[in-house]
Amino acid sequence: MRTASPRPSLSEEARQAMAQVDGSRLIGMQRTLASFGGREDGGVAREALTATEREARRWLIQQVSGPRYSWHVDAAANLFLRRAGTDDSLPPVMTGSHIDTQPVGGWLDGAYGVIAGLEALLALDSAGIDTRHPIELAIWTNEEGSRFSPGAMGSSAFAEPASLAAFLGSTDASGVRFETERDATVAATPEALNVPLGRPVRAYLEAHIEQGPILEASGCKLGIVTGIQGVRWFEITVCGSSAHAGTTPLDDRRDALMTAARMVARIGDRAASLEDPALRVTVGRFDAAPGAINTVADRVTFTIDLRHPEEARLAAFEHHIREIVAQGTGRCTAEVRRLMQRTPTVFADEVVSIVEAAVATSGEPSCRLVSGAFHDAMHLADVCPTGMLFVPSHRGISHNAAENTDETDLIAGARILAAALTELAC
Amino acid sequence: MRTASPRPSLSEEARQAMAQVDGSRLIGMQRTLASFGGREDGGVAREALTATEREARRWLIQQVSGPRYSWHVDAAANLFLRRAGTDDSLPPVMTGSHIDTQPVGGWLDGAYGVIAGLEALLALDSAGIDTRHPIELAIWTNEEGSRFSPGAMGSSAFAEPASLAAFLGSTDASGVRFETERDATVAATPEALNVPLGRPVRAYLEAHIEQGPILEASGCKLGIVTGIQGVRWFEITVCGSSAHAGTTPLDDRRDALMTAARMVARIGDRAASLEDPALRVTVGRFDAAPGAINTVADRVTFTIDLRHPEEARLAAFEHHIREIVAQGTGRCTAEVRRLMQRTPTVFADEVVSIVEAAVATSGEPSCRLVSGAFHDAMHLADVCPTGMLFVPSHRGISHNAAENTDETDLIAGARILAAALTELAC
Repeated sequence: MRTASPRPSLSEEARQAMAQVDGSRLIGMQRTLASFGGREDGGVAREALTATEREARRWLIQQVSGPRYSWHVDAAANLFLRRAGTDDSLPPVMTGSHIDTQPVGGWLDGAYGVIAGLEALLALDSAGIDTRHPIELAIWTNEEGSRFSPGAMGSSAFAEPASLAAFLGSTDASGVRFETERDATVAATPEALNVPLGRPVRAYLEAHIEQGPILEASGCKLGIVTGIQGVRWFEITVCGSSAHAGTTPLDDRRDALMTAARMVARIGDRAASLEDPALRVTVGRFDAAPGAINTVADRVTFTIDLRHPEEARLAAFEHHIREIVAQGTGRCTAEVRRLMQRTPTVFADEVVSIVEAAVATSGEPSCRLVSGAFHDAMHLADVCPTGMLFVPSHRGISHNAAENTDETDLIAGARILAAALTELAC
Repeated sequence: MRTASPRPSLSEEARQAMAQVDGSRLIGMQRTLASFGGREDGGVAREALTATEREARRWLIQQVSGPRYSWHVDAAANLFLRRAGTDDSLPPVMTGSHIDTQPVGGWLDGAYGVIAGLEALLALDSAGIDTRHPIELAIWTNEEGSRFSPGAMGSSAFAEPASLAAFLGSTDASGVRFETERDATVAATPEALNVPLGRPVRAYLEAHIEQGPILEASGCKLGIVTGIQGVRWFEITVCGSSAHAGTTPLDDRRDALMTAARMVARIGDRAASLEDPALRVTVGRFDAAPGAINTVADRVTFTIDLRHPEEARLAAFEHHIREIVAQGTGRCTAEVRRLMQRTPTVFADEVVSIVEAAVATSGEPSCRLVSGAFHDAMHLADVCPTGMLFVPSHRGISHNAAENTDETDLIAGARILAAALTELAC
């Protein structure tokens, strides 16, 4: 935990914007957005580019009005609520997040960054502040990736327009194409003018719930995010021979399941032995075939999600994985395939400092931390100075109806966001 | 390996029946049966009570004719080809097995016992032998249990008629009821007269491929089966908490998959450490939920198939399993549920001795062994003197298109079966 000393400077406009954040308006809008796809258990079912998500987009564009505002949409169906700057030719400062959810998600994942950004715009309106740069609230398409794979299609296509072509043919479980739903979603907001992907951006600042337990455990109300962990995904396939559970002596077996379970246990033991609090190693999938109670499995596929803020540690643990697999095959064979890798993201000092200054002004207890989750900000960081702000998650729970954050923390985060955006845009 | 000394006696009729076994007729019938559901890869797809299996039943009843023969069917759709005895009021000697296969099985599992039994009947015809007891070739319904669960419905209902009621509502993956397919199968052989379940049986002798590697490894051509391993099936459920793979520190996790993998590895280590060649421990299913690459699993269910010829060893290893699970839960919870248990089956000395006498007469190298697989004979052993005869399986492979046995071994087995049935029925 850090306290605010020495206090960095914050402009008078930024302090005014912070003061105009209306907590009850923020919470009211947050609850209204949660009603699109809201469930009795408190969860929200609003997957990307569904009719439910389109209704929520329509509701969002109705929340801003007046001569300062315009609406825009790009070829990835990213939606932008733009508040004009005094020099509207300057690249915009952007904020935002996503409003799509997991099949059943919580009410705050993504939605909080959008509503906090919306509240920041309204606070600027209330304060009568005109910023030099325009400010745009971005609603990025399909961050979750649960309906159409991969995730973060909108923000990654924004940062790298050439990537869009490969997304268009992605289909959901019913065989519906991403392209079809994108077109329907663009058509649902005819007020929005087309803008190109890959426009210049002055800076990007995204508010988000932490989705982890660190802020809550340390008593911090605000998290100044300095970057995003690097990640490597692996798929390990172990091949043996199927055999009858009753007739085949243990010594004669090529048991893919037993071999794979021993590898998983050793990978877990190795991770624990390193005592590195920043290391994340997860075996989340483990599929055994044929999967019959009385048959020795001939094929197991399991996955490893490996994360760390330092590239060198990622490489070192990948070496451990390959070593454990190579030494543990026994009478089976095994293959390690790297499905994905993303180097650690380091956020811009400029943006981190401005967030830190705003946090210091607020007087709330805060921590610096590295995000363990991916966010749209990861892609924006490739093209402009970027930062993030976290608010605590109850018990670290997310992607779940039980996902929650204290209202006072949601309000505190929106105040920081309003101040920092003002600072970046003035 | 045993050689035949001292040679037990075998009746003259039994020697004549053995001599009349026609190897090319046997192999021809075996190949014809394999054509019902036969695949290009050599596998056979003939699940229980399908149209394909019904066609095979129709073909089977056409293979016997003349005044000695009649056909019968019971309420479990068990089909019987009956060769009359000179005292037809005596309970029948039975042989047989099943003709249903796994979704894709081999050409011999079950089918060999039926065709070898059929060849034995035809050899008796050729030899002009009349037995005192009738002899029935039984085609037991749904031994495999892959389409309708549980397996061995036909033979278990025969041995315990009250068990049939619970089977009728069993449905296949398409929702079709066992009862519906039973009725259609009974209707497909209108020549067959209804007989009750649970009739008295003089003795039961089943020929089968070993489905394991022991005979081949020891150079034996014939296996004198003295019993069937006892078995206990367990389902272990480990519950933790789902959590984000990126945000949740390793120490904060309740990782059901890592916990379960460690249990499996320890169970494998314990089994190996006992160095007991008769012990079989198999973890064949391992299902992790939610099964996402970037989510800590909150629930894993895995199964253990435990077999041993001695009840005390089964009990001892169950104790090991419960101890490993109880000591390995960490921050998760775990539950062990015993799904099934079956005490070891010990075959009747009388039947084993007759098989041994026939084997000795044949001069083929033989071994005594305990079956690691379940067979219909397991249920018959509850109601009558029972035995089994094994022939070798290439590399122990079964439930697979590659399942095979040398033709000479198939013929040698049929000769033993013909002799032993004659001995039992005269």
